[in-house]
Amino acid sequence: MSILIKNVCLLNRVEKDVFIVGNRIEKIGKDLRVFADEEIDGKGKVILPGLINMHTHSAMTLFRGYADDMPLERWLKEKIWPMEQKLTFEDVYWGAKLACLEMIKTGTTTFVDNYWFTLATAKAVEEMGLRAFLASPFFDFFEQNKRKEAIQETERVLESSKNFSDRVKITLGPHSIYTVSEQGLRWIREYANTHHLFIQIHLSETEQEVEECRQRYSKHPVEFLDSLGFIDKNVICAHCLWLTEKEMEILAEKGAGVVYNPSSNMKLSSGIFDYPCARKKGVRVCLGTDGCASNNNLDMFEEMKIGALLQKLKGAENLPADECLDLAIRKPAECLGLEMGIEEGKLADVILLDLRQCAFTPGYNLTSDIVYSASGLCVSELICDGKVLMREGKVKGEEEILEKVKEVARDLINR
Amino acid sequence: MSILIKNVCLLNRVEKDVFIVGNRIEKIGKDLRVFADEEIDGKGKVILPGLINMHTHSAMTLFRGYADDMPLERWLKEKIWPMEQKLTFEDVYWGAKLACLEMIKTGTTTFVDNYWFTLATAKAVEEMGLRAFLASPFFDFFEQNKRKEAIQETERVLESSKNFSDRVKITLGPHSIYTVSEQGLRWIREYANTHHLFIQIHLSETEQEVEECRQRYSKHPVEFLDSLGFIDKNVICAHCLWLTEKEMEILAEKGAGVVYNPSSNMKLSSGIFDYPCARKKGVRVCLGTDGCASNNNLDMFEEMKIGALLQKLKGAENLPADECLDLAIRKPAECLGLEMGIEEGKLADVILLDLRQCAFTPGYNLTSDIVYSASGLCVSELICDGKVLMREGKVKGEEEILEKVKEVARDLINR
Repeated sequence: MSILIKNVCLLNRVEKDVFIVGNRIEKIGKDLRVFADEEIDGKGKVILPGLINMHTHSAMTLFRGYADDMPLERWLKEKIWPMEQKLTFEDVYWGAKLACLEMIKTGTTTFVDNYWFTLATAKAVEEMGLRAFLASPFFDFFEQNKRKEAIQETERVLESSKNFSDRVKITLGPHSIYTVSEQGLRWIREYANTHHLFIQIHLSETEQEVEECRQRYSKHPVEFLDSLGFIDKNVICAHCLWLTEKEMEILAEKGAGVVYNPSSNMKLSSGIFDYPCARKKGVRVCLGTDGCASNNNLDMFEEMKIGALLQKLKGAENLPADECLDLAIRKPAECLGLEMGIEEGKLADVILLDLRQCAFTPGYNLTSDIVYSASGLCVSELICDGKVLMREGKVKGEEEILEKVKEVARDLINR
Repeated sequence: MSILIKNVCLLNRVEKDVFIVGNRIEKIGKDLRVFADEEIDGKGKVILPGLINMHTHSAMTLFRGYADDMPLERWLKEKIWPMEQKLTFEDVYWGAKLACLEMIKTGTTTFVDNYWFTLATAKAVEEMGLRAFLASPFFDFFEQNKRKEAIQETERVLESSKNFSDRVKITLGPHSIYTVSEQGLRWIREYANTHHLFIQIHLSETEQEVEECRQRYSKHPVEFLDSLGFIDKNVICAHCLWLTEKEMEILAEKGAGVVYNPSSNMKLSSGIFDYPCARKKGVRVCLGTDGCASNNNLDMFEEMKIGALLQKLKGAENLPADECLDLAIRKPAECLGLEMGIEEGKLADVILLDLRQCAFTPGYNLTSDIVYSASGLCVSELICDGKVLMREGKVKGEEEILEKVKEVARDLINR
């Protein structure tokens, strides 16, 4: 399978042909004379690596608009958790299909996910053609029997995932230090080492969580996790709003990924991520949307703008456009070990943005236009793993997914 | 001229036909049997009043992406003001054309603008079919001869505007209390009274402005203006970030419009508008994008989301979705005396959003989806003053505008 994208702009505005063979960019040049199975006219468009959404709960598209304008704890306890009790494999499958569709439409080729019925999401990802790192959620609530169940479920998911393609990677998913015991966390770290798995964890999302950790372990969250040998470069920590400088230093030294989720943090009133400090300490910061119940979309373009603007509250020079784009592509690619970039040999995970739009006019600074002016709906083509998933804004089967999700959600809410 | 929109959803999800005659909504009902010059299939779409952008500088689309990541004062002095020195009538005309195109594409039917070469913007608005309230900028920098010039220019603009249609209203535009003298402000108030004009002013955008006002007049900005009899219901105050409770009370009592510009305020690190206080005091709060040099687009949907999220930093219950939608339609319509709404007799300034998109699925809460999930590019049709300006996402002549603006901007930057 090969794809030739003709006359497409690179970020520096130079026009080239991009030739994709299999799942890699084979060649970039002027007027390439090659045969391709599929040809795309890139004239008037720019090519970028696909965006990477480093923290979401994809099937929560099912809860879009269901619970707004509430603080985190009430939101979880009164609205989200009771609904999640009712979820089935089928629900999650359709929720994840919608999430994949939405990510394709808005330029995301890879996402890092943490949700119930991991295999339902895996099935959706497999079918939709995206790349994903999917955690099986792990909660033990400090109880031995719950821990045993969580371990069994994790092992079952990992075992079952062997039938999936390379695009689908299972990761470990300890929910947080306030829902998983020290023994649970130790088991996770050991299991990750043995099986070479990434770990996703919610970390220091609220001030209360930090206070409870200090009471329970007499340490700040990162210090506590580090004392277990938990923090390492294969750990992806979501939120991280209430860290001390010392905790930032530990995360930087160990090379852990830290995910900034600006919309969700604002919506749930959780706090403001201290990007200038993280930057100074050399923390590997990435961007994520969080789930659709706290955002309420999966548009990484919007997330870049909101993420940059939020940092500027404390200084207009903070998080400039080029750095912000890095949080959505280069930094997460480093974290996940994905070879991303519009260069020969890199993964054919790319998107095309149609520049013939107001958002890109007059066009002094393409990076600025991408980060501050465009929305995800400016994406016209998406290719993941060398396959065209969207062409001229259309995705195969999209109407069916929208209809089916409406049905599933209606049923869920009345169940 | 009449338009029949068939089977379109209202905000309450009830499906109706909407019949427009001239520039008003004539009838709303099921299966209307009427003849119309133009028919639009509204199936799967929702109809809303057009959004109102209460503060922008439309021709600043010319500076989109030209100067980012800088604080207000440096941004103005080093980048924006020098570029503005070079602007011509022709430049502003094309910049305003692009702004109108962008507003049509993203669902805004009316905007309140303040920029050089007011008549160039008026010409663009006239041609593009939108509704606008355009100020002629007034600066005197506390000098008598400059004041004389500003007065002459204001009178000239008002006189020349008589040829424009009802959609184009000229307003007065004293830039701010730090660029216009007390004498200038008194003249503006008197002239507004005589000619029944709105007044637009930048107010308390920075802490420094407040400090300077206290040194010059021994009063806070709103108190100073009120002492001149300046504050009234025909005054539209942009930004208002550094007000005391007492100032809020004055603005509320006098019924002045106050414009919240969240993206611009964040980007230029100006501060956070105290919406909870303004709400408690009964201030008439509206939403605006500000100009494209500090935003960098004119998407009021994005502005609603960012505006709501910014307020939630201080409490997740602050500025819920329905209230936020009001800041973009109902409140500004009250300010401007526009009869907006999907009701018989109201202005035919309406937009259709295509619900067959991820952003509106599953669709528990349409208002939430509009505010938190949709982007401006979800708008498919726009009708202003009874004329269809966009149909199925297409606006007549859009390619020509984009091309011409690129040319103008290239020339401007090299001038």
